[in-house]
Amino acid sequence: MKNLLLILMLVFTISEASSQKVNIEDSLTIRSIYDMALLNGKSYEWLEYLSNEIGGRLSGSLEAERAVKYTESILNELGLDKVWLQPVMVPKWTRGIAEYAYIETAPGLSSTTNICALGGSVATPDGGLKAEVIEVQGIEDLARYGKEQIEGKIVFYNRPMQADLINTFQAYGGCVDQRYAGAMEAAKYGAVGVVVRSMSLRMDDFPHTGSMTYGDTPADQRIPACAISTNGAEYLSSVLKIKPDLKFYFKQNCKTFNDVESYNVIGEITGTTYPNKFMIVGGHLDSWDLGDGSHDDGAGCVQSMEVLRLFKKINYKPKHSIRVVLFMNEENGLRGGRKYAEIAKLKREEHVFALESDAGGFTPRGFSFDTDDANFKQIKSWESLFKPYLIHYFEKGGSGADIGPLKEDGVVLSGLRPDSQRYFDHHHAASDTFDAVNKRELELGGAAMASLVYLMDKYGTKTEVTEVKK
Amino acid sequence: MKNLLLILMLVFTISEASSQKVNIEDSLTIRSIYDMALLNGKSYEWLEYLSNEIGGRLSGSLEAERAVKYTESILNELGLDKVWLQPVMVPKWTRGIAEYAYIETAPGLSSTTNICALGGSVATPDGGLKAEVIEVQGIEDLARYGKEQIEGKIVFYNRPMQADLINTFQAYGGCVDQRYAGAMEAAKYGAVGVVVRSMSLRMDDFPHTGSMTYGDTPADQRIPACAISTNGAEYLSSVLKIKPDLKFYFKQNCKTFNDVESYNVIGEITGTTYPNKFMIVGGHLDSWDLGDGSHDDGAGCVQSMEVLRLFKKINYKPKHSIRVVLFMNEENGLRGGRKYAEIAKLKREEHVFALESDAGGFTPRGFSFDTDDANFKQIKSWESLFKPYLIHYFEKGGSGADIGPLKEDGVVLSGLRPDSQRYFDHHHAASDTFDAVNKRELELGGAAMASLVYLMDKYGTKTEVTEVKK
Repeated sequence: MKNLLLILMLVFTISEASSQKVNIEDSLTIRSIYDMALLNGKSYEWLEYLSNEIGGRLSGSLEAERAVKYTESILNELGLDKVWLQPVMVPKWTRGIAEYAYIETAPGLSSTTNICALGGSVATPDGGLKAEVIEVQGIEDLARYGKEQIEGKIVFYNRPMQADLINTFQAYGGCVDQRYAGAMEAAKYGAVGVVVRSMSLRMDDFPHTGSMTYGDTPADQRIPACAISTNGAEYLSSVLKIKPDLKFYFKQNCKTFNDVESYNVIGEITGTTYPNKFMIVGGHLDSWDLGDGSHDDGAGCVQSMEVLRLFKKINYKPKHSIRVVLFMNEENGLRGGRKYAEIAKLKREEHVFALESDAGGFTPRGFSFDTDDANFKQIKSWESLFKPYLIHYFEKGGSGADIGPLKEDGVVLSGLRPDSQRYFDHHHAASDTFDAVNKRELELGGAAMASLVYLMDKYGTKTEVTEVKK
Repeated sequence: MKNLLLILMLVFTISEASSQKVNIEDSLTIRSIYDMALLNGKSYEWLEYLSNEIGGRLSGSLEAERAVKYTESILNELGLDKVWLQPVMVPKWTRGIAEYAYIETAPGLSSTTNICALGGSVATPDGGLKAEVIEVQGIEDLARYGKEQIEGKIVFYNRPMQADLINTFQAYGGCVDQRYAGAMEAAKYGAVGVVVRSMSLRMDDFPHTGSMTYGDTPADQRIPACAISTNGAEYLSSVLKIKPDLKFYFKQNCKTFNDVESYNVIGEITGTTYPNKFMIVGGHLDSWDLGDGSHDDGAGCVQSMEVLRLFKKINYKPKHSIRVVLFMNEENGLRGGRKYAEIAKLKREEHVFALESDAGGFTPRGFSFDTDDANFKQIKSWESLFKPYLIHYFEKGGSGADIGPLKEDGVVLSGLRPDSQRYFDHHHAASDTFDAVNKRELELGGAAMASLVYLMDKYGTKTEVTEVKK
């Protein structure tokens, strides 16, 4: 009994000592990653170019093509082992000339209000569309009002994001069905158009666009859909209370063309031990067209590129092949993410880990993980390494839209989780601009990502380790 | 032996059950605090008035007096038990008409650059001051160059804040001696003026002011001191490398008047159980004059006022007397903080806890505590209650300048610790304006503060609990 205790104590001491040793080496590597990112980072400079020299990068636009060429050229300068473009057909939807809208309370008595077409919407008739408005708090309300109260009207979805939720993405998730499916559902009740309150927690004059679907609604039954700014929504709602028969006019000139060819931009450092096992880090290169796409998702692209640059600069030679993937068409199709996964499957490339940054270039708080308990336990054991960098959030949860198609048993998926408070102030709006990005916050995100990829590469996922043991 | 084990298990189970019960009640109260702050907060509206209707509130200015009157009137509306003004004499230093500076590389060949006088500096002579420049990396360098290289010159302190430090306050602490004591030290070597690189991690054109001291330097040996923007500092340094004998000209018109009377603004909810034990929450009402003092420290003031409003709104009746104290003159004298502690001592008011918010209205990360191990242990036991709100930072450390004079054995001092990445972009500069404050980030800070004060009030500090038991 005494001997057993002694042995147990010894085992414990050794295992603690060896884990301490590991931690010191890891601590030093992570410190060198952060030093390089904060003292000699490149992501901010790259983002400045993407945002101010190129601008909004809607799929199929000239700007998107310029962004492909620019990021390819940067990756070529980093001394990676491979850089290539992966062709993918993407939808091409254009806004056309700026939208226009007004609220008419009596003939000749009207006030303009700020709207923008939702991505994928049809245009209004050439002369615009004018109709009475019915305000609802969500799709659920349609059945309650029924065809008799909705037919011939414009449906105004005005359920706001819930301000009492701490995570703003949760608040977004609780509202975005209005934008995504609102037109399709309202058309079933004979609505002639929809106006959706912008998905933002801030009261201002910016309308926020975003993707929508008509599902299998026949082309001739598709109704135009626009977003109205939060201030505009409050105003419209308050006027409706006094003047329920007011009319809303809007005109939009958007158009869907045939699909066009575009590209995912990919760079790789080939692994020293497992060249055929892949870990990827990415963001999406396309953006909406109203701002310059700095937070969504220029930030995620330059942070992902920075991860590979940091590895080269600190002379870290990964065991696995590490790829940066700049996905095309996350916003209105996810074609890039699907194509990447499709080709990976075709080529039987074994992907073991994927990390996406698509929640803005704000101070990173941590990561969420879509994985099993064994992998999650290993990841949690690294938490203390991140404490000096105030990275504290390690939870199970979603990862990122673009890497979603890679999901299968054993693949660890993760999403960077920056502070979310300001994200929806900018998301999909003209206010998503470079000046809203802080250099240090952006750089801290890239450094956190590189640190996680380093640990994943060094220790491997639990799934592949088990495999290798077999 | 078996019985002992059973007893121990029972004790453990009961204590766990009772602590669970406590946690549920606390969880619900904290949730109600956050709901009220995020759905029905007032701090942002108050800050808008302080910032945009009043503006920069330098001690002794009309704006400072207006801020006293405004915040007193707001506190009067909250239904507190007492609201009063506490008189305090404060220094009165004025900037006068805007400063002006240029770099002259040859007679008639010069370029202007952005400067501002440091707070407390003397003016230049009426015609301005022009002299050669010696660039140093800190006060330590003065002895190395000696009187022969410094005499008759302007000393240019150019040691930047260290970008590799994660906490920007640490980077500030590593540089601010140049601003605070640079003129006093340079004068000893015969310098005629000093130019200090702005305390900011951002490259831009804003000069950042801040307090400085002449120590016991006789009045006729005091030399004028200004701050130059970070871009300006880089430019000056680069031109000096090519043209070491360039001349720097600056003119500033600042002046120190006799002290004037001002006030700390105080409101109180009197405690139900311990009316004579005080817990205070505060910020400082004065600010520098270049911006409107939104982050430094309008934010801390409105958050502190909000704490008491939240208690009233959720109908929480504290056991201890809870005071909000809006201190006057933190920036250039700390007279308000000293006066408050002096009067508390005179009146033998027992202060048990003080919390200050003076690090900007950014997303709160947690708190630092200046306290003993017993109190710190109790505080750490509350960590899980804050986890849903992403408040994760509970460390020993400094609290706040204004509450510092209350420090004595047994008093728990604490400082709110918001995300620090953007703070020094705005600190003491014309860029410290209301538009740089995000409503939700501000409100989350007030809610976190109210939650901590609630727990402190409910459980008491360990020091007073021990006392009460005696």
